[in-house]
Amino acid sequence: MLTIDKVYDASKVLKEVALQTEIIHAANINPDCDIYLKTENLQVTGSFKVRGAYYKIHNLTEEERSHGVIACSAGNHAQGVALAAAKGSIDAVICIPSGAPLSKVEATRKYGANVELVEGVYDDAYRRACEIQKESGRIFIHPFNDEDVIAGQGTIGLEIVTQIPDVDVVLVPIGGGGLISGVSFAVKSLYPKCKVYGVQAEGAPSMVRSLKSGEPTELSGVSTVADGIAVKKPGDLTFQMVHDYVDDVVTVSEDEIATAILTLIERQKLIAEGAGAVAVAAAMFNKVDLKGKKVVCLISGGNIDVNILSRVITRGLVKRGRSASLTLSLTDKPGELLKVSSIIAATGANILGVNHNRSALGTAITACELEVSMETRDHNHVAEIRKALMEAGFQIVH
Amino acid sequence: MLTIDKVYDASKVLKEVALQTEIIHAANINPDCDIYLKTENLQVTGSFKVRGAYYKIHNLTEEERSHGVIACSAGNHAQGVALAAAKGSIDAVICIPSGAPLSKVEATRKYGANVELVEGVYDDAYRRACEIQKESGRIFIHPFNDEDVIAGQGTIGLEIVTQIPDVDVVLVPIGGGGLISGVSFAVKSLYPKCKVYGVQAEGAPSMVRSLKSGEPTELSGVSTVADGIAVKKPGDLTFQMVHDYVDDVVTVSEDEIATAILTLIERQKLIAEGAGAVAVAAAMFNKVDLKGKKVVCLISGGNIDVNILSRVITRGLVKRGRSASLTLSLTDKPGELLKVSSIIAATGANILGVNHNRSALGTAITACELEVSMETRDHNHVAEIRKALMEAGFQIVH
Repeated sequence: MLTIDKVYDASKVLKEVALQTEIIHAANINPDCDIYLKTENLQVTGSFKVRGAYYKIHNLTEEERSHGVIACSAGNHAQGVALAAAKGSIDAVICIPSGAPLSKVEATRKYGANVELVEGVYDDAYRRACEIQKESGRIFIHPFNDEDVIAGQGTIGLEIVTQIPDVDVVLVPIGGGGLISGVSFAVKSLYPKCKVYGVQAEGAPSMVRSLKSGEPTELSGVSTVADGIAVKKPGDLTFQMVHDYVDDVVTVSEDEIATAILTLIERQKLIAEGAGAVAVAAAMFNKVDLKGKKVVCLISGGNIDVNILSRVITRGLVKRGRSASLTLSLTDKPGELLKVSSIIAATGANILGVNHNRSALGTAITACELEVSMETRDHNHVAEIRKALMEAGFQIVH
Repeated sequence: MLTIDKVYDASKVLKEVALQTEIIHAANINPDCDIYLKTENLQVTGSFKVRGAYYKIHNLTEEERSHGVIACSAGNHAQGVALAAAKGSIDAVICIPSGAPLSKVEATRKYGANVELVEGVYDDAYRRACEIQKESGRIFIHPFNDEDVIAGQGTIGLEIVTQIPDVDVVLVPIGGGGLISGVSFAVKSLYPKCKVYGVQAEGAPSMVRSLKSGEPTELSGVSTVADGIAVKKPGDLTFQMVHDYVDDVVTVSEDEIATAILTLIERQKLIAEGAGAVAVAAAMFNKVDLKGKKVVCLISGGNIDVNILSRVITRGLVKRGRSASLTLSLTDKPGELLKVSSIIAATGANILGVNHNRSALGTAITACELEVSMETRDHNHVAEIRKALMEAGFQIVH
């Protein structure tokens, strides 16, 4: 049974390796409440995972340490275990599915772990890790379903109630449930009045389903930009703790996650990964009642692949009407582009790119399609541009 | 004459509106020294500018306040003045050149200022602001060449020597020179042993030139992604202070700035704008001797236009070999793309996009060009892919 003393012990041990991350006030995320961000994206390794991994490894016996450790992860847990093992001078093998972003593989190697790339997805890597564990006698470091790991993550809860003593609500991302198990246990132990809500991606709602069915339940598949919480099934330990200590679990959509990432960039100058942004997404889109409350959103990590980041930015801008693309059907004669450009410029929009396409299906042989991408103010502005182009006789394909 | 007492006074006044921003340890930027980041990108309005603007406005007489204020800026100064004026309940007009990013215009409006969009570039907006000033008697809030403004920026220097008492080197971006004038004055007053270096963009080296010629010297043009420090000529006041208090001024290239922005995103999870990243760029690329030193890089702001951010990411990835594009000349028959895909997949690279072009000049009528963009590990990996494709008989156009 986890005790608050154990979480305090973890907190003392973690001083050697982890930061007490800052809480940053975020005035512009939801005007109805007072939001603070617990910035575990600024933690060493770029996520909270090092806390649980280090405390677990710290508690191993000399004999266990001599066997080395093994873990399986496509992301933050890999880096957390790699760093924790390095700090403890313990040999580590990390199985990573071959589809994982190269940046994460490289980061794990940089911390000194032996990376075994396994053909396939997470489940394949997990199976391979279990094989290696059996052959080698290495200690398996579970990413969430482990009391020491949960105690390590729980130190974040201690910090939150110290940093914001009168906090009303804490919003926490849920993948396997290790983070929220520790945080909710610590927060409810010290300050039972505070509400703790979990947040999952709509595409990976394993804890929501499990709570509904009353036991840990496996999803047939998961799909979300929040790869850090794309977990098919919670652990029995984490399921029980969420059941006992968490007030409710809500979900956010992919577009809501992308909007949260972009908002954190523009308004707070912070990078969050998809999983790291779900709590902010829940606060932005009022998934729980936050009116007049003092709210801490836990940003669990910032290790977003930069290619995905680039796509999130593009999509977020379009969604907010801050950029737009129009495709026009033009007669293929000189001067048409100039006309279009002047009309768009007159509305105050900024053209970012144009693309002529002469072989589009359904256009006359003397016609061509022109795709224009623009920086715009908002959806009204886009509508205004469409109207101006149509009034000048241009045909908008889409 | 600026006094340290005045900087202390500014510090007291600024408690009403500005944050004492955090100093964050950055372990992975340059292994040869110990780097800390002073995060003015996390300041309210997303940059340090609010400090100087608010202190200036705070010091106006009742009579001056009744006239309102006017300023000219394409960026952070606009938001700083707008917020400072709003907090002091003073009417503000901000002239912004029409080419400025819409996001900055909207942000300035949101703080309650009257924005006057002026056709043209900064100089045109400046002229218009001077006209309005004369007609209306509004108080002109200069972005840098003003003792009160400099005292406000100097509060950052006070904070640095309090937060890192044994700092050896402070690196500070220079545009007009207001920030570094205040910071170097405060740092040298309290801790003369500390070196203070200025950093400019290669494309806007006005202070470097001015120091060389011994007087404020105007550049014929400026061009840099660091738009916040794209200033043609320093002020007489700031020139003198840099001359007296700053140890040296260095420059960084556009690619170095882009790399610094990307490094801050990947390793520190922080968004810096171009101007905000030049100090980090100088530290990364050893523009001054930092070996074994304790170094503070001042990140002056984080208000980067997200479209530019997207481009910086793309370019930075290519520069580091983390992504690459190849154009191949193919015979236009079924199965060729499959062959190319298998060869690339076998090297462990991830294909991000392909583009068939059948009308490229110089290709045979039965041939087509195939452009492949990939996520790669490094430059060696790219070379390996090129070699594998050539060995399989494909012709690489570029």
